[in-house]
Amino acid sequence: MGPVHLSDSRGAVVRRLVAMLREAKSRGAEMVVFPELALTTFFPRYWMEEAEAQARFFEAQMPNTDVQPLFDAARELGVGFYLGYAELAEDGRPYNTAVLVNRKGEISGKYRKIHLPGHMEHKPEAPFQHLEKKYFDVGNLGFRVFESEAVKYGMCLCNDRRWPETYRVMALQSAEVVMLGYNTPSLNIHWNEPVHLRTTTHLVSLQANAYQNGIWVAAAAKCGSEDGHHMIGSSVIVAPTGEIVARTLTQEDEVICVSADLSLGEHFRQHVFNFAKHRRPEHYRLIVDRVGAGDPLP
Amino acid sequence: MGPVHLSDSRGAVVRRLVAMLREAKSRGAEMVVFPELALTTFFPRYWMEEAEAQARFFEAQMPNTDVQPLFDAARELGVGFYLGYAELAEDGRPYNTAVLVNRKGEISGKYRKIHLPGHMEHKPEAPFQHLEKKYFDVGNLGFRVFESEAVKYGMCLCNDRRWPETYRVMALQSAEVVMLGYNTPSLNIHWNEPVHLRTTTHLVSLQANAYQNGIWVAAAAKCGSEDGHHMIGSSVIVAPTGEIVARTLTQEDEVICVSADLSLGEHFRQHVFNFAKHRRPEHYRLIVDRVGAGDPLP
Repeated sequence: MGPVHLSDSRGAVVRRLVAMLREAKSRGAEMVVFPELALTTFFPRYWMEEAEAQARFFEAQMPNTDVQPLFDAARELGVGFYLGYAELAEDGRPYNTAVLVNRKGEISGKYRKIHLPGHMEHKPEAPFQHLEKKYFDVGNLGFRVFESEAVKYGMCLCNDRRWPETYRVMALQSAEVVMLGYNTPSLNIHWNEPVHLRTTTHLVSLQANAYQNGIWVAAAAKCGSEDGHHMIGSSVIVAPTGEIVARTLTQEDEVICVSADLSLGEHFRQHVFNFAKHRRPEHYRLIVDRVGAGDPLP
Repeated sequence: MGPVHLSDSRGAVVRRLVAMLREAKSRGAEMVVFPELALTTFFPRYWMEEAEAQARFFEAQMPNTDVQPLFDAARELGVGFYLGYAELAEDGRPYNTAVLVNRKGEISGKYRKIHLPGHMEHKPEAPFQHLEKKYFDVGNLGFRVFESEAVKYGMCLCNDRRWPETYRVMALQSAEVVMLGYNTPSLNIHWNEPVHLRTTTHLVSLQANAYQNGIWVAAAAKCGSEDGHHMIGSSVIVAPTGEIVARTLTQEDEVICVSADLSLGEHFRQHVFNFAKHRRPEHYRLIVDRVGAGDPLP
């Protein structure tokens, strides 16, 4: 998905999403993955009061009047989709959220982002902000797997894709496909990171975790430059072999599509990654017993 | 390391290891990683009685007369090393083991392989066997980290490198370098796997896990053909950026060497992978609560 600027209306964005949904359907798609915070610009790059952010960029209902045409198109076409957006929950808490919508246009799964990157404080010296820890609460729904139209889908968002725990928890629930939206700035504001790493670490994380869990991974980003802020894009579909089988090339709205053989993952799940046969959780305790890194065990 | 054939003596193998240790030292090395089961051929490819395997391929002492020259060379040169071998423990139990030897030629750490691949039963129809589950007990020492000469080393072996839990448990103990030996057959006896995947899945696993934990990974294999059984080789050193910074090219004994800036990992450990700030173990419970994959959580 190309950039969404501050001045773009929800209605204009949804028209673009519907056009991509129709193109995907014409190419045989049964499920479409849209980016994180797909309805607005990536607003955590701007400092503002929480109340202002919520008023401008969050959705208190899903669907709502602006987004309804996308749900209608899904039902009309018989195509499911994953959509990321900023959610204001019924209890007033803010989440970075994705929903799974089935081919009847019904919400059949929800995920709220757990690994929130960035910072809470204003960094006026930085070229832009990364304020997800300020604007969002940590997700409270866990990493769940949803069976929808006979496929087991897992969902996560952006920075979650760099954490192997994300995929493992879903693979232990027999996920076959993990869908994720993301927005990754082309510049790292935290250290002087070589620019090429922004893309290579993204790709290698998806590839290794698809392989190590025997799952398909479909990752969709916004790309191009939102009001001068460039993002890496590089949306991909990764097979359980760890191979990238489709990748975007442009800096604008673009549809990539594969026919995903879900049984391909079985080769891995039955042999090298036969969890029941090979995993040794008695040696993994530290993964849940520690949060941060500490001293070597005695 | 090139192949070790059934007819090769321990003495001849150790002379090759000492020659590589000397070359590494001449190129500035302070630590050298040798392969898994470096002293013998990769014998789990052959079916035999356990007693015969233990008599021919296991070490009841480390060091012993055959291996002592390697320990002596380490002390003389002031170079540490990692060495994989088949261990017959004092209680008679068999392990696939690696030791960390410091620059004084003293054993300062031991690891016994936890993720044993392959099978226990004879598969006479297969072109060769993969009998690690028959010849070895599951390691009982956990994934520990050893501080030796001011560096925090983790160790694992071969198939462990494909399991993200391996690296995470060691990164949670502040490992800076993970060393591993491996032997990977070029053919998969379990399914008709495309040959190129044998190498790409090896590399992508090392790259993603180095990056996702902010650690250096040094992985050393035997390569070439042991009595007609070809192995993938492709020994590499991977930086905390996920980049391969050194890789072997030949099918014989070959030394690769890098100057590893241990502080490079800090960029990742302080920001994107600041575990204390970003990890959410309350959502990782399934990693230790389940062994095999099961139903989606309700």
